[in-house]
Amino acid sequence: MITLTTDFGTRDSYIAEMKGVILTINPEATLIDITHEVEKFNARVGAFILASAARYFPKGTVHLVVVDPGVGTERQAILAQTERGFFVGPDNGVLMLAAQNQGILRIHELANPKFMLPNVSSTFHGRDIFAPAAAYLDSGVKPSEFGPEISNPVMPEFVSVQKNNGSLVGEVLNVDAFGNIITNITHEEMAETKIIKVKLPKISLNLTFAKIYAEVEPQEAIALIGSHGFVEIALNQGSAAEKFQAKAGDKVEVSPA
Amino acid sequence: MITLTTDFGTRDSYIAEMKGVILTINPEATLIDITHEVEKFNARVGAFILASAARYFPKGTVHLVVVDPGVGTERQAILAQTERGFFVGPDNGVLMLAAQNQGILRIHELANPKFMLPNVSSTFHGRDIFAPAAAYLDSGVKPSEFGPEISNPVMPEFVSVQKNNGSLVGEVLNVDAFGNIITNITHEEMAETKIIKVKLPKISLNLTFAKIYAEVEPQEAIALIGSHGFVEIALNQGSAAEKFQAKAGDKVEVSPA
Amino acid sequence: MITLTTDFGTRDSYIAEMKGVILTINPEATLIDITHEVEKFNARVGAFILASAARYFPKGTVHLVVVDPGVGTERQAILAQTERGFFVGPDNGVLMLAAQNQGILRIHELANPKFMLPNVSSTFHGRDIFAPAAAYLDSGVKPSEFGPEISNPVMPEFVSVQKNNGSLVGEVLNVDAFGNIITNITHEEMAETKIIKVKLPKISLNLTFAKIYAEVEPQEAIALIGSHGFVEIALNQGSAAEKFQAKAGDKVEVSPA
Repeated sequence: MITLTTDFGTRDSYIAEMKGVILTINPEATLIDITHEVEKFNARVGAFILASAARYFPKGTVHLVVVDPGVGTERQAILAQTERGFFVGPDNGVLMLAAQNQGILRIHELANPKFMLPNVSSTFHGRDIFAPAAAYLDSGVKPSEFGPEISNPVMPEFVSVQKNNGSLVGEVLNVDAFGNIITNITHEEMAETKIIKVKLPKISLNLTFAKIYAEVEPQEAIALIGSHGFVEIALNQGSAAEKFQAKAGDKVEVSPA
Repeated sequence: MITLTTDFGTRDSYIAEMKGVILTINPEATLIDITHEVEKFNARVGAFILASAARYFPKGTVHLVVVDPGVGTERQAILAQTERGFFVGPDNGVLMLAAQNQGILRIHELANPKFMLPNVSSTFHGRDIFAPAAAYLDSGVKPSEFGPEISNPVMPEFVSVQKNNGSLVGEVLNVDAFGNIITNITHEEMAETKIIKVKLPKISLNLTFAKIYAEVEPQEAIALIGSHGFVEIALNQGSAAEKFQAKAGDKVEVSPA
Repeated sequence: MITLTTDFGTRDSYIAEMKGVILTINPEATLIDITHEVEKFNARVGAFILASAARYFPKGTVHLVVVDPGVGTERQAILAQTERGFFVGPDNGVLMLAAQNQGILRIHELANPKFMLPNVSSTFHGRDIFAPAAAYLDSGVKPSEFGPEISNPVMPEFVSVQKNNGSLVGEVLNVDAFGNIITNITHEEMAETKIIKVKLPKISLNLTFAKIYAEVEPQEAIALIGSHGFVEIALNQGSAAEKFQAKAGDKVEVSPA
């Protein structure tokens, strides 16, 4: 089983070219799209989405991720073998969050031309290097055959949550398609407070800490623990991100009201 | 075979989380997306789209649908067994139109924690309850094992077509991606008229009743019977919904001109 | 294996109806979406995307393409058998570019009602004629069984590149989701120039001819050979099409600076 995560969008032929390459090498592969709508060139958002999804896939799954603003530069192409599966993509941090969650066993450079397309373009390694690597991994080729082991992969730049005078300072990991504002502050870090004060770049507000969206009236705001275990600012049946003008990467501060 | 219909959009990890859960339980499942772009929280539009698609799937197909503004409230999670397959989703009417079309045999509550993820979140039953239920159903678990039979499911609120002084009064079921305005007035209800008068909230107009879009010039309006058997207002190669400012739920009145 | 390329968008039930029809006829079919976001009614853009993707699929693949503004008119429904696979769609040129690339062996009309749905609508041949044809082809039915051979299929209207006083005059084939402007001028036609002058309808500019996007600063413009072998105008990490107001079909002129 191979999953695909990219920032390519779905209107061009790029995703299909990758899938055709995979299925030519490995006609039995099961292909599952995670998303192709990662914010373009944003490896951090890609890392968050991949990490959110990867934990639900079966053991042995190969996760192919291409958010790759540095394609063609000296950035390396890598694969990570973890205790639960494999990750293939550029060495820019995009696959490291998900891989670390699963316990990394080893990381190899993708350097062996035997497992690439015969002509490697300088602008589309997703098709020419990463897709073949995923297909060969899924069909049983050993990680060590792809290239030398490397020890210093690029890490994604996530801010860790800081405690500051009783408040928690973190960041917005993602704004989802519903407009929910997903922060990096976890369940464990939250005191058992009923009302919290939330500070975003454009607004400060006091919110009821709820369990479900429907605890407030439609279009009203709440905070809750979302399905990935992070504090989330939401409107019931509305877009909190639009109302509060928040976006991925924004600083967020949470404290008891 | 399992189909998926949601209002989640495709840019987040949510759809992939559901698919990962299904494939972990049932690695042999074939997964087919119906759409993930149902208008958010609109169970009626979801019901229409699911019913339109479900009739074309093979016997035994499991249809998973999650348009679920009441997630975490006391609304029940249900499965419906029909003469042709299965439907899994929230008890808010979203699956009932399609299920009724196939002849409902029985409806069960999804109450057995054995067929849920170990930790059920209060905000994402699609992943924690509905996806596992679909996977287990597809792998042969009997409907009765999921929970008690229920007899009063929530029905979707569709307006039935009324006759009124020679005119038919119905509603817009859906506006499709082409901008075609699909009403709930059926083929059978239409007199054999060549020109009809159509009244929408923002406009009244006389339209030729055509067989195909290309019967008029590009950007010109016609009425015809669409591919689901309903009266449709369309522009040849253009968007009628944009031109006439129509949307799902609008009242529509049709009469001989 | 069957691929699908349409201009239907992904929010309606249409794609799923086609897939349900295919899987009812041929439950073992592997279905791969190329895209459903071809610019509506634009057979030329559809032809370019299909041709770009088809070359990466395994031998024997059936490519189903529905960009069909003339549905229900006297335009024919056809299949093309090539040296590498099959193409199914309307006879408006949308499948011919890809088919020609693979070497066409024969073209048949889809005329045999045995391989259509029992009731053929006048507005959705994708579901009622093309999907069944793809499913039967994939399950081994011979091309000759679908209908008589035809010899004069409609060709897509692509402008060929002209030489004019040392400059090359072509057109924009596609603007991709990144905003890259893809022309029909090929690698071979380019002199080995370091700086080229590019003339688009709204702007003339001198561009460095680069190998990779990251050769210039973010948001700066370059020209390069894209992954399909065509000259491409791009911004590093930005949208050239937006900045230079270019779109598919635009005239483009390239010359040494």
